[in-house]
Amino acid sequence: MSREADLADAHPAEAPADEDLEDLALDEDYALNAAFVDMVIDAADLGDGARVRELVSALRPADVADLMGFLTANYRREILPHIPPDELAEILSELDTNIREEVLEDLAPATLAKALETLDSDDAADVVDDLDEDRRKSVLAAMPAIERSAIEASLAHDETSAGRLMQREVVYAPQFWTVGQVVEHMSRDDDDLPELFFDVYVVDPTMRPVGAVPVSRLLRASRDAALADFMEAVTEIPVDMDQEEVAYIFDKYHLISAPVVDAGGRLVGQITVDDVVGVIQEESQEDMLALANVSGAGRDATTAGIVRSRLPWLVLNLATETVAVSAIAIYQDEIARIVTLAVLMPIISSLGGNAGTQTLAVAVRALAAREMNASNIRRIIGRELAAGLLNGLGLAIVMGLAVMAFYHDYKLALTAGLALIADIFVAAVGGIVAPLILERMGRDPAVSSSIIVTFLTDLAGFFSVLTIAALILL
Amino acid sequence: MSREADLADAHPAEAPADEDLEDLALDEDYALNAAFVDMVIDAADLGDGARVRELVSALRPADVADLMGFLTANYRREILPHIPPDELAEILSELDTNIREEVLEDLAPATLAKALETLDSDDAADVVDDLDEDRRKSVLAAMPAIERSAIEASLAHDETSAGRLMQREVVYAPQFWTVGQVVEHMSRDDDDLPELFFDVYVVDPTMRPVGAVPVSRLLRASRDAALADFMEAVTEIPVDMDQEEVAYIFDKYHLISAPVVDAGGRLVGQITVDDVVGVIQEESQEDMLALANVSGAGRDATTAGIVRSRLPWLVLNLATETVAVSAIAIYQDEIARIVTLAVLMPIISSLGGNAGTQTLAVAVRALAAREMNASNIRRIIGRELAAGLLNGLGLAIVMGLAVMAFYHDYKLALTAGLALIADIFVAAVGGIVAPLILERMGRDPAVSSSIIVTFLTDLAGFFSVLTIAALILL
Repeated sequence: MSREADLADAHPAEAPADEDLEDLALDEDYALNAAFVDMVIDAADLGDGARVRELVSALRPADVADLMGFLTANYRREILPHIPPDELAEILSELDTNIREEVLEDLAPATLAKALETLDSDDAADVVDDLDEDRRKSVLAAMPAIERSAIEASLAHDETSAGRLMQREVVYAPQFWTVGQVVEHMSRDDDDLPELFFDVYVVDPTMRPVGAVPVSRLLRASRDAALADFMEAVTEIPVDMDQEEVAYIFDKYHLISAPVVDAGGRLVGQITVDDVVGVIQEESQEDMLALANVSGAGRDATTAGIVRSRLPWLVLNLATETVAVSAIAIYQDEIARIVTLAVLMPIISSLGGNAGTQTLAVAVRALAAREMNASNIRRIIGRELAAGLLNGLGLAIVMGLAVMAFYHDYKLALTAGLALIADIFVAAVGGIVAPLILERMGRDPAVSSSIIVTFLTDLAGFFSVLTIAALILL
Repeated sequence: MSREADLADAHPAEAPADEDLEDLALDEDYALNAAFVDMVIDAADLGDGARVRELVSALRPADVADLMGFLTANYRREILPHIPPDELAEILSELDTNIREEVLEDLAPATLAKALETLDSDDAADVVDDLDEDRRKSVLAAMPAIERSAIEASLAHDETSAGRLMQREVVYAPQFWTVGQVVEHMSRDDDDLPELFFDVYVVDPTMRPVGAVPVSRLLRASRDAALADFMEAVTEIPVDMDQEEVAYIFDKYHLISAPVVDAGGRLVGQITVDDVVGVIQEESQEDMLALANVSGAGRDATTAGIVRSRLPWLVLNLATETVAVSAIAIYQDEIARIVTLAVLMPIISSLGGNAGTQTLAVAVRALAAREMNASNIRRIIGRELAAGLLNGLGLAIVMGLAVMAFYHDYKLALTAGLALIADIFVAAVGGIVAPLILERMGRDPAVSSSIIVTFLTDLAGFFSVLTIAALILL
């Protein structure tokens, strides 16, 4: 982010041209635009290294990472040498995982070690984690001992834990210090401090956080004021907490940063909200993809990768559907006599599936937002079932009338209507109960619940049409 | 958040008891637990106001708002008078919209006006927006002129725009100032400043932002350093930008705060990341619910509200399904002869629907993350179609073998396999093209695209089975 200011110092004459390029690169909403990507591709095709360098250096690190995502692997390899060395680390930390793994293979361990020293420990650990075993060793060996041990400590934590999300760089002060002492300490001790920070944590003699002072308050306080007099309560994050819970806490209490503590309650690092924003995006997207039975696939996915992430789910779906249609196979004779049933069944099972998905999505959202617990679960289930009955009734009337209009057969209309009510009710039950059971079993309620609900609604749809038809029509 | 510190000053002896209650109220992951909600309900049932007050005052504002969400309207009405007046405003700003509207009806305009003065202008405007016309007028009339005009200015912006998200309270300084001048200015001018801030914006004489200085840098800089010497470039947010784009920018550049500018480029406010976290949650959840054809429903939804948010989609689904099954109605004679077709069709259309939803979810995510544009769209479509063909082929082999095993009829197996390949391919086309067309039309690609894709895959599933059967089997 300091690029503009740096340029203004060094080459004031060049700044306007660069500004124009950034304007060209980004749309009004700061999304990288296709025309700029094409300019980079053209320059690379022409082997015009100077032009590539000029284009790339007009972008901020996040935009260079975005650019890499739009390119194919061949072009990425051509662009890589033209990336300014001082921006390499930040760009690496912004890249999608798959692309990063690929790019890292092309970098010399010494270059990489040097670049990583400029990152906060959490970001550096993320990058190192994507290296294969051998290269990881040589990169870490090439780093100064302090940075190396910080990265190793970070990697020792679970990949989705607070320990991994946190940075070890943190500003803290003993509770008996004054504002003036804190400010003096910070001006002296430059290297160990985080690049940006938002809170100074106040600790007791055993390093347990007892409060925090937002930097903006510190700035406005008189120098001889005691920290303990205007510190605020802190929300401590245990080092082994899952990142999804960390995100929930930041969102709930509108935190900007929070101290991370070990099992003994001692301060070991901090998590800042900008890291959490990424987690929130990730977790919500995962839920959406899981409900659609996809196990994640970015823009750089290969065709084989797409097949791998989806075919297993489709095969599972094929298996459950085969069971569901066994209802139809049993009643083949009845269908041969009244073929109209073969027309009605798909409508009913489709509506059941849709209603089930609706309930499911609402339930998965409520669970993720921790808006459902024992105190309101009965009320929520009751409401879902009541709404399921009403929706079923409404649809049954519409469908019954439509069947009457097409086939002039009130028994057929009654069959369709009753089967629809039954299936929509099953959808409501399945849509709320399936995710709750998965959650109770300690599993992600978004994963595989839609397969279960579709199976239930298809089975119920086919069976209800055919058994009701057997009772009323035959 | 300052509760703990305040208590320690005022009544050191009471703090432990209160701490225990908060521990009791919140699970390890800081989610409100059911046992505590029940304690509040029990106290309310017994009419024990002192106990209710004690329980409620152990919670932070966000947790009180969460508690309200777990209660029914009757209990909310009983709790309301026991909420500490100085926390009322913050709790109001945390409440779900529906609940807030209900709670606001029970508050006197004067109480409300007094509470709102303590909020930043964006939060106050959110609350005022939920008042009906008459009460809004009387509440605004009871407020000091400055706060009133700030709220009115905020409400003049579109509900999902940057202008509504921003707070007007902002710290800025002319570019020729030194660090010392800024610090002095801040210690003097206490009332107009935001409660917390993270950047001081540097402006030119026409109030256009030319840079920003993070507060943590300011704290470490020497007093006579010029702001212009170490300010960073800023990412300006136009006041009419949609909140979804604002969220994208904050996520991309890891911003903590950003200046909001009017059409003339002049600083009019700032957006801070804690407001954006809520938007990110909201937008991702909306996409997930929209893909499942639900138009949003919180835990406080009534049965009637649930029906209203889902029945219209189901009726639309009924209409499209009716068209899709017309394929079956046309071929009734063929089905009567080969009833097995009625068994195969639902399997194929279900798999097609599932494959279409997979592609759709991936496409909607990529569009929301702005990972698709003209420069990679052909590649992405090509990959999706290739993966669709491969998935179809894989499934066709499995299903063909299954049909052979069950029915010992290679023509039937061939029919099922070919129809499946066709339907999965249609799913791939529909899943990627439908959201792109909706996006191009300026509509939300998540809304209604799953109805379109399900319609296409059902229609293609039925038609392909029956036409291929007509060619091969009959």
